[in-house]
Amino acid sequence: MEDVARETGLTKSSLYYHVASKEELLARALERAFGPLLAILEEPGATSGTPLDRLRHIVHRSVMLTLEFVQEVELLQRIKGNTRTERNALEWRRRMDREVARLVDEAARAGQIRSDIEPHLVTRLIFGMSNSITQWYRQQGRLEAAEIAAAVSAMVFEGIAGARGRPAPRA
Amino acid sequence: MEDVARETGLTKSSLYYHVASKEELLARALERAFGPLLAILEEPGATSGTPLDRLRHIVHRSVMLTLEFVQEVELLQRIKGNTRTERNALEWRRRMDREVARLVDEAARAGQIRSDIEPHLVTRLIFGMSNSITQWYRQQGRLEAAEIAAAVSAMVFEGIAGARGRPAPRA
Repeated sequence: MEDVARETGLTKSSLYYHVASKEELLARALERAFGPLLAILEEPGATSGTPLDRLRHIVHRSVMLTLEFVQEVELLQRIKGNTRTERNALEWRRRMDREVARLVDEAARAGQIRSDIEPHLVTRLIFGMSNSITQWYRQQGRLEAAEIAAAVSAMVFEGIAGARGRPAPRA
Repeated sequence: MEDVARETGLTKSSLYYHVASKEELLARALERAFGPLLAILEEPGATSGTPLDRLRHIVHRSVMLTLEFVQEVELLQRIKGNTRTERNALEWRRRMDREVARLVDEAARAGQIRSDIEPHLVTRLIFGMSNSITQWYRQQGRLEAAEIAAAVSAMVFEGIAGARGRPAPRA
């Protein structure tokens, strides 16, 4: 709390007027990222269209929000479940994973995506790639958010070798 | 050092007989992972064949080694460059990134992989996905290392939608 007071130029007592504790500060930071992230699941793009369309929407939006809330998403990756706030956040993360894994499963059953990788593993690898951006992304850096989001989607859905790297299909 | 002495059942003086300092301990852990990781670049599979073949070899082997040295690779992701050991490790990591990015570029120029994503971005996203495994992988867990490595390679090179998720190519 002392560091926050110094950084914001508030006295400690004014800071405590706004935020009751370190725990509340963490809760607010996590909610700032998790509110919009969970809300993706309710967006029209995530609730209508084919399972693959919905999945594409969710991946694109998740990356865009990760880039918007880099610090909060980074924080989110470090929580272990030690306090009630952290346990809540883990529960949100599990809910997000569960919903996306369900959609991956649905898309696989519909023959829209490959079905040879377990849906939960697909989900973990997608978010693994997407979350890793927080380790190097700098706002106002050389790479635009939209460019990065497009790259993640391209890699997740088409891969880098895509049609070009595969043996030509037999006619 | 006290924690290590307790965990290993050594007295602190015997521990210091083997390892001079905390810094040396970190250096050894990082070398244990980075030795084999950098050695991948010299393996026959990484030095012969098409750029795409070599890239496939490197990605597969990196994931397998990440799964073998989960704790060391996790450690590697947390270093910031505060000490000489950490700076060395960052230099190794940059060397690995550079070599892989060069190969990505070569494969793209050869028309074997897509060329619309910057080679350094491709490289970061590949290692981002691969490193993220350390956050949830448990040895002797339900998923086999080979299964996870195959999933990462499939996602990186073919993506999940692959040919199935794309609009049919025009004749």
